[in-house]
Amino acid sequence: MADKITKRADDYSQWYLDIVNRAELAENSDVRGCMVIRPHGYAIWEKMQRALDRMFKDAGHVNAYFPLFIPKRFLEKEAEHVEGFAKECAVVTHSRLRADPGGGGLVVDPASRLEEELVIRPTSETIIWNTYKNWIQSWRDLPLLINQWCNVVRWEMRTRLFLRTAEFLWQEGHTAHATQAEAEEEARRILEIYRTFAEDWMAMPVLTGPKSEGQKFPGAIYTLCIEALMQDCRALQAGTSHFLGQNFAKAFDVQFPNADGKREYAWATSWGVSTRLIGGLLMTHSDDQGLVLPPRLAPIHVAIVPIFKKPEEKQAVLAAANRLAADLRGFPLSDWLNYEPLVVKVDDRDQHRPGDKFYEWELKGVAVRVELGPKDLEKNACVLARRDLPGKEAKQMGVPLAAAPTRIADMLNAMQTDLLERARKFRDAHSFEVNSYDEFKQKIDDPGGFLYAHWNGTRETEDQIAAETKATIRCIPLDRKKEPGKCMVTGKPSEGRVVFARAY
Amino acid sequence: MADKITKRADDYSQWYLDIVNRAELAENSDVRGCMVIRPHGYAIWEKMQRALDRMFKDAGHVNAYFPLFIPKRFLEKEAEHVEGFAKECAVVTHSRLRADPGGGGLVVDPASRLEEELVIRPTSETIIWNTYKNWIQSWRDLPLLINQWCNVVRWEMRTRLFLRTAEFLWQEGHTAHATQAEAEEEARRILEIYRTFAEDWMAMPVLTGPKSEGQKFPGAIYTLCIEALMQDCRALQAGTSHFLGQNFAKAFDVQFPNADGKREYAWATSWGVSTRLIGGLLMTHSDDQGLVLPPRLAPIHVAIVPIFKKPEEKQAVLAAANRLAADLRGFPLSDWLNYEPLVVKVDDRDQHRPGDKFYEWELKGVAVRVELGPKDLEKNACVLARRDLPGKEAKQMGVPLAAAPTRIADMLNAMQTDLLERARKFRDAHSFEVNSYDEFKQKIDDPGGFLYAHWNGTRETEDQIAAETKATIRCIPLDRKKEPGKCMVTGKPSEGRVVFARAY
Repeated sequence: MADKITKRADDYSQWYLDIVNRAELAENSDVRGCMVIRPHGYAIWEKMQRALDRMFKDAGHVNAYFPLFIPKRFLEKEAEHVEGFAKECAVVTHSRLRADPGGGGLVVDPASRLEEELVIRPTSETIIWNTYKNWIQSWRDLPLLINQWCNVVRWEMRTRLFLRTAEFLWQEGHTAHATQAEAEEEARRILEIYRTFAEDWMAMPVLTGPKSEGQKFPGAIYTLCIEALMQDCRALQAGTSHFLGQNFAKAFDVQFPNADGKREYAWATSWGVSTRLIGGLLMTHSDDQGLVLPPRLAPIHVAIVPIFKKPEEKQAVLAAANRLAADLRGFPLSDWLNYEPLVVKVDDRDQHRPGDKFYEWELKGVAVRVELGPKDLEKNACVLARRDLPGKEAKQMGVPLAAAPTRIADMLNAMQTDLLERARKFRDAHSFEVNSYDEFKQKIDDPGGFLYAHWNGTRETEDQIAAETKATIRCIPLDRKKEPGKCMVTGKPSEGRVVFARAY
Repeated sequence: MADKITKRADDYSQWYLDIVNRAELAENSDVRGCMVIRPHGYAIWEKMQRALDRMFKDAGHVNAYFPLFIPKRFLEKEAEHVEGFAKECAVVTHSRLRADPGGGGLVVDPASRLEEELVIRPTSETIIWNTYKNWIQSWRDLPLLINQWCNVVRWEMRTRLFLRTAEFLWQEGHTAHATQAEAEEEARRILEIYRTFAEDWMAMPVLTGPKSEGQKFPGAIYTLCIEALMQDCRALQAGTSHFLGQNFAKAFDVQFPNADGKREYAWATSWGVSTRLIGGLLMTHSDDQGLVLPPRLAPIHVAIVPIFKKPEEKQAVLAAANRLAADLRGFPLSDWLNYEPLVVKVDDRDQHRPGDKFYEWELKGVAVRVELGPKDLEKNACVLARRDLPGKEAKQMGVPLAAAPTRIADMLNAMQTDLLERARKFRDAHSFEVNSYDEFKQKIDDPGGFLYAHWNGTRETEDQIAAETKATIRCIPLDRKKEPGKCMVTGKPSEGRVVFARAY
């Protein structure tokens, strides 16, 4: 069966679709551009949600829920915002179907035409700021630190499972503050939460910093982002945190008397990460055998494969496998797994051979496989295999059953750390300082990666580079060194290097 | 401020809206029929989700996510289903807005008209069974035990916060089975989960049983339900579990070869509870002072109100309050609260008097209030007050600070049990066996409640009773006694009593 996954080296795009499909993470639906997230994929999202939700709450945020529908007039209120979102959206115009008078089937009932069209939210700034207007009466009502977990729709023409779909799931934070400084601090605090989540949970190293003017969110003063590098050397924008200034407060007239009694517009941020993160997770770690998932986000931590031939062996081996599973499930709940128990499968299916089972759990990204046969049992031992290590390195032979839970916990920890380290090395090996546009054009084709280059700061040059090389500015790194230079295209002065890449 | 809540005895409907509004649970949005669920209301939903989700998973279910949009042709496939849902739905017809050529603002771009209209899901049987067609190749793929947490839209004309809104949040389970017996068992298993959740978490006693033919889900063979009685003696359908037979498998041609190699249509169930449960929770326990929430679902368990006049008192009292809060938050995580810590607020706001703070926490349904002043502190003690008990009964004076956490945990436990007991007594006091239609008409007006009466089993009689009394059959209780009798309207034979009520 293994030949059904295309090798990364042969066709990276097809490899990605193959693992999403074969590991049963998601599939295209019969609705244009909309995906079905299958249970194994959704379990990853649930773990992401839980970890992020706790981080948001620990930083003082609460969840709420706002309507799916946005009245058309709301979208009109913020000029840049409407430009960015009105062009591709799902528009609700009627509220009833009726039997076709001319024959079978249903038709839209023309009598149910809405007075005002509704747009399915592509993002919720407008409806939320229209609501905040009533909630903010005084500086005492601030800050408002609210997050929402929901679905959104953008009518994308070219979709790709998890990475770009018409409907996707996400969280969107929307905060209101009394001062500019507080709002900017919030935008940076969230960026730091996203960075921490990406690194500590997803084991995916990220660059952080503002987007260029050309890449920012429509309606923002500036956009901060986390930016990761995938195994094919293309970049993935993995999360954004926007400082919105007073744009939406002005659009929806949200004013409050400040501590001095003067009326002032509220200051805003918004920020989000989506199911796109699952795509990033896959493209950071997985291999030609299937999923490799960091243990903190893996739906299944351990698969125990009992091995036997004779019926009398089966009973003893299965009993030992179930005892070990119970020990593992009873392992103390820890912060590290967000107070959830280890998820352990005992693969006792009769109709499959052990080899097929190994293959399947490898494909599905189970972190540790336990092999347990009659000979192991004689020695009260088992074999452990770590998903992310190659060949013999992966295996620990003759591990005493009593020591297995601790040994497995250690393996999970080590795997989480190693995955991040490996991804960081990969990124560093594919990050280059380039000093001429010729070098840039060459390197962006081969080997690709993050190219650190000087740029004159204009939209015009950015657009030219994008048109000529398909590379865009991914971010202006927060930690970049002060290094004045000359724009590689125009020769004009530059304050420091920015990061270019071809991106998803 | 207390006079802003209408008394239940004066106007129950207005009381309900008052507490939803004043406790900041939800509000109407500018989008017709859609609500904004505010953070205090959403926190209740999160706790409900978490408890239910765990119960579903413990029973072998997994979560997934299916598209928001349903192609029109899918709705046409199941005859009863289309009747039930096509009449009130949000229809997406276009995918783009553009600047109005004739002036300011946006208009729908006629060029973006969709080839096939999409309906926002009112429920997902159709899109899910269209997907299951590909997932079910053999009896080995069964059962499929899948649940989805999402938003749905039904274009309701008369809405009421939480109880009936155009958009609402819910979970919908959709299972597929190889045999009729397994599917029916699943429908009953879920009913039992709903009953357990209603009683053990919401402290809301429920009747369980099938709906009459006239009240079942469009597309089901039969519908099981949990049915609760609110304080105004009206019934609330709080959850439904449908046995769908092979209706959707036939509509979407989902066949599989069974163990004997014969092709057979799969058997189905679907089941759901929604944010309507929050309305039921409020109307079961809350009082004229505001929310009364069962501790297992309360967003805030304990509010500590420090009391002081002089600045030197303030410091000592606040320090003690914060120490107590830390002790409470560190109380061992328990299954009883789904492994979440106690939520404790120290109300150190300067600009409010203690009396106002008491009032606010009462309004918001905090289970236990702690009062802590200089005189208490001298004795290393505090005062505890339980939200659900009246007057002096509510208070425990002079509780040693060291003993307070345990004492509070005991109070939370007792409150949870007492709320269920009280609600059960209320329901039992408002449940009547009636033996004539005259008695029925009288009792349904005064005092109202659950009326157990004989009925001939026909849709016709049921419709007549509804038209004449506004009472409907809420359920045919699973545990009803075998008691043949005569229909109170027609005098025809009846196998046993069914439960009537006026309902939300």
